[in-house]
Amino acid sequence: MQLGLVGLGKMGFNMRQRLREGGHEVIGYDPRPEVSDVPTLAALAEALDAPRAVWVMVPSGHITDETITSLAEVLSPGDLVIDGGNSRYTEDAPHAKLLGDKGIAFIDAGVSGGIWGLTEGYGLMVGGSKEDVDRVMPIFDTLRPPGELADGFVHAGPVGAGHYAKMVHNGIEYGLMMAYAEGYELLAAEDLIEDTQAVIQAWTNGTVVRSWLQQLLAKALKEDPEFHDITGYTEDSGEGRWTVEEAINHRVPMPVIAASLFARFASRQEDSPTMKAVSALRNQFGGHAVTRISESG
Amino acid sequence: MQLGLVGLGKMGFNMRQRLREGGHEVIGYDPRPEVSDVPTLAALAEALDAPRAVWVMVPSGHITDETITSLAEVLSPGDLVIDGGNSRYTEDAPHAKLLGDKGIAFIDAGVSGGIWGLTEGYGLMVGGSKEDVDRVMPIFDTLRPPGELADGFVHAGPVGAGHYAKMVHNGIEYGLMMAYAEGYELLAAEDLIEDTQAVIQAWTNGTVVRSWLQQLLAKALKEDPEFHDITGYTEDSGEGRWTVEEAINHRVPMPVIAASLFARFASRQEDSPTMKAVSALRNQFGGHAVTRISESG
Amino acid sequence: MQLGLVGLGKMGFNMRQRLREGGHEVIGYDPRPEVSDVPTLAALAEALDAPRAVWVMVPSGHITDETITSLAEVLSPGDLVIDGGNSRYTEDAPHAKLLGDKGIAFIDAGVSGGIWGLTEGYGLMVGGSKEDVDRVMPIFDTLRPPGELADGFVHAGPVGAGHYAKMVHNGIEYGLMMAYAEGYELLAAEDLIEDTQAVIQAWTNGTVVRSWLQQLLAKALKEDPEFHDITGYTEDSGEGRWTVEEAINHRVPMPVIAASLFARFASRQEDSPTMKAVSALRNQFGGHAVTRISESG
Amino acid sequence: MQLGLVGLGKMGFNMRQRLREGGHEVIGYDPRPEVSDVPTLAALAEALDAPRAVWVMVPSGHITDETITSLAEVLSPGDLVIDGGNSRYTEDAPHAKLLGDKGIAFIDAGVSGGIWGLTEGYGLMVGGSKEDVDRVMPIFDTLRPPGELADGFVHAGPVGAGHYAKMVHNGIEYGLMMAYAEGYELLAAEDLIEDTQAVIQAWTNGTVVRSWLQQLLAKALKEDPEFHDITGYTEDSGEGRWTVEEAINHRVPMPVIAASLFARFASRQEDSPTMKAVSALRNQFGGHAVTRISESG
Repeated sequence: MQLGLVGLGKMGFNMRQRLREGGHEVIGYDPRPEVSDVPTLAALAEALDAPRAVWVMVPSGHITDETITSLAEVLSPGDLVIDGGNSRYTEDAPHAKLLGDKGIAFIDAGVSGGIWGLTEGYGLMVGGSKEDVDRVMPIFDTLRPPGELADGFVHAGPVGAGHYAKMVHNGIEYGLMMAYAEGYELLAAEDLIEDTQAVIQAWTNGTVVRSWLQQLLAKALKEDPEFHDITGYTEDSGEGRWTVEEAINHRVPMPVIAASLFARFASRQEDSPTMKAVSALRNQFGGHAVTRISESG
Repeated sequence: MQLGLVGLGKMGFNMRQRLREGGHEVIGYDPRPEVSDVPTLAALAEALDAPRAVWVMVPSGHITDETITSLAEVLSPGDLVIDGGNSRYTEDAPHAKLLGDKGIAFIDAGVSGGIWGLTEGYGLMVGGSKEDVDRVMPIFDTLRPPGELADGFVHAGPVGAGHYAKMVHNGIEYGLMMAYAEGYELLAAEDLIEDTQAVIQAWTNGTVVRSWLQQLLAKALKEDPEFHDITGYTEDSGEGRWTVEEAINHRVPMPVIAASLFARFASRQEDSPTMKAVSALRNQFGGHAVTRISESG
Repeated sequence: MQLGLVGLGKMGFNMRQRLREGGHEVIGYDPRPEVSDVPTLAALAEALDAPRAVWVMVPSGHITDETITSLAEVLSPGDLVIDGGNSRYTEDAPHAKLLGDKGIAFIDAGVSGGIWGLTEGYGLMVGGSKEDVDRVMPIFDTLRPPGELADGFVHAGPVGAGHYAKMVHNGIEYGLMMAYAEGYELLAAEDLIEDTQAVIQAWTNGTVVRSWLQQLLAKALKEDPEFHDITGYTEDSGEGRWTVEEAINHRVPMPVIAASLFARFASRQEDSPTMKAVSALRNQFGGHAVTRISESG
Repeated sequence: MQLGLVGLGKMGFNMRQRLREGGHEVIGYDPRPEVSDVPTLAALAEALDAPRAVWVMVPSGHITDETITSLAEVLSPGDLVIDGGNSRYTEDAPHAKLLGDKGIAFIDAGVSGGIWGLTEGYGLMVGGSKEDVDRVMPIFDTLRPPGELADGFVHAGPVGAGHYAKMVHNGIEYGLMMAYAEGYELLAAEDLIEDTQAVIQAWTNGTVVRSWLQQLLAKALKEDPEFHDITGYTEDSGEGRWTVEEAINHRVPMPVIAASLFARFASRQEDSPTMKAVSALRNQFGGHAVTRISESG
């Protein structure tokens, strides 16, 4: 089918390609002319046959806001917008309302898979009405990975459910990565272990901890055995924070995912004000840093 | 090749079957006559041709200790013992010494895979000398999963390295399970999500969090959608505790795996003494439990 | 000076008494006639001489909202309202705006001390303009504990700063209580320690951990040595949640306070969905709960 | 009474002074001649009247071991040794045995108070037989803070109980310091708070969080308002590690104290191997560090 696609960054660019290879007619718009098929959003709307379907794949937050607001102006009643970015699920209802007031339908879609999605397919979690989801199912069908539909696609619930599921997916991801990483550090610290990469590689088949992330960790260690070319500075992109906030809202204990989030915050600090305060306290009661008798109390 | 196998519980029983299907001659010993091939350890030693190889697959701790001590008595110089149980790696050197004093070789082998190992193969992490490992490589080759050797087997280092790698594997496992479980609880708490099982099932292909444990969680939820038939009471079997203790020894920060371990401890308490103390403190400064104005301070 | 006081619950009731003992004329309003000095908020406004000062001491959230909205109707330009409850600091600016539109000034005051404040004085953290704070300083002076002003009172900044400081105070409180409580549980678990209460009591003087909370814990244990009459079920009253949310907003790692918050959430669950999922996973890969060989992997 | 005192570092030096001011005859030994009263341990033994009491106040671990071993050689049956250092409680029974074999009694004493103990007195937690404790009670009475005996001294149980109580004390201390420090960092991060020091200072009276550590934090911030002259690098001196290990032994959930310990480990790492691995993983699935579309999933 025909699809408008706004945002041709790393994700959108690949998705256009996968959809085209799947036989769809994709007209892409991006502010960078070198990748864009049309010069403006208005031109995109004009180029599509009504009723239109437009997939938005831009950074979450105000850029998504602006894009959807602009689309509300250039699209027509009966059209449909899919927000495939990592928007916070709480923004979906307002976006659905904004578009709905103009007769435009809205679906939120959580998309997982990163740069591998082009070849392996994207895991999809979508929210919206059954009618709307059915309407763009051919697009979802091409984007999703091959195999059983239920193993790579879920219509998780009404508007917001897709992004909620994706948010939790990413929160879990934080915890998984941290669990592997802590284990890696411990293996690397122990002299008995002669080749940390080989151990992690060996977990690929048969073990309880085998996973895609485990394989990626083995691959990363193969490329750079002691992570010489990498720093611990680690960004977080919203979903981790939102997951912990939702846990607080729902009174769900979430020690592991929260700890994973805090470790990212800490990784970006030059020095820790918290630990400066702890260190200052030790000095206050224990005297100078170096003492003959243990100074800790 | 020929192998003695001591311990025909859930793991050992299946391993005997997998090895026999792989063409090996396995003579198993277990105190339960209905599963044992020989009546005693001495009979096992007699039934094997020297130089013997004996795999020990019994609960870690004193049962493993006793088994290895007994084997030291019935085996002969030139024989070889493999401890495939979940022994703490610190016990490997004493066991190697005990056996070595009688001229018997020792290998420690961490075995992952649980009840699935019978059909899928067991992930193997072994420690010992190259010579000793080579000697029983045909056994490892049959037990390990099909595919690249390096993807399911690692000779991790000298004696102790196998159990160390397995210990870290299990520590990671604790963290992974907890990450998925926290995410599950949050999904289940949110009304937007109409079918938690379907969301987790959909992560099977294409997503970053796809893994064997993710598939098992989807399977478990399919069988018992709200975990009606299960309690949160969760045992831990040693490796998690040892992993955190090793982290402390190596001064490795390990917030996620430690939190996962503590959650298991907490799951087994009828009520928490810690939280009783917190509750008592709140009463002390805030008055009765129910107050019109917030009592917390 | 003269003060209107709305809310005569546990905190407000005691504050009225302390203020009256300090020589102030306090007219209190509460929906419960048996404690109220006037029948309605309107009657309260009438009974006070303009320009009026009214202290609001009611539960945070919609009751505070409603009270301030009602006060905006019955008060006059030039009057001043102090919110002494545990409102979230983000509600202070809207309340200041609502009142400011009618020419009424606003101060937010974090009040600590619980039921002990009546006799020991209340720790005060206030936000607002210098002019407004100066105006009601006689009230603050009577409420605060004796001693140096700076040791029991702070004008922390503009509107919102008082509740922000109080929020952080309570977040810290969560962490402190949990630290003592964890230590208590460990002492109580160890046979070498013959009298846990005596150990905690002995920390009262000379030690690094001495504090008011430590003394309260010793007192609580004296009254109920093994906490027989108490359960671990522990409420949280907002500030802990908000503190962690603010930490996330500011990208501040906050492992200890977050863990303390999550422990409270967990204390209120009959059973943990997270641990049910972990337990289900263990069953999936390890077979039945009881196995002869360690079932964990 | 007469006391031998081995170790005249920061703690021992002050303790000698406090004891002498309390009317005791203290003969101190230290390898540094400029502070020592006698040239050797043997000379110390000779200078004391039998039955002797000798207080050991040296760094825990092998130095304490060596000192006690040496004392066993120079002392006589009927003498008594007190280990006042921060020894692990598990070392007390072996030390008691070593000395007991020669007829020498042993007491373990946890001593809190740091450099403030000289003037304020030392919080004391002791383990040993009633008879032995009674014998040196005059010494304990002078070292402990003034006031009720039970508020600064506890005979916690048999040999080992004193160090166990001190270990838990220090574990709690880790958690308390971290709770205050996290709160400090959050206050410092928020623009509404005009003077972080003033807020923490104001908690001195009336509040729930008032404590000695809180006052020390206020003092430290007064001396160096933004901790310009301090780094976050924070040592740990054993008790924190042992506390978490004991929690694991007793299956006590200990999230807060463990998190405080791990934060210290992290503070001493130039970069975090764990976070390098997390960062490497993100690159693996998300492409380059900078992406137009969120790369986290």
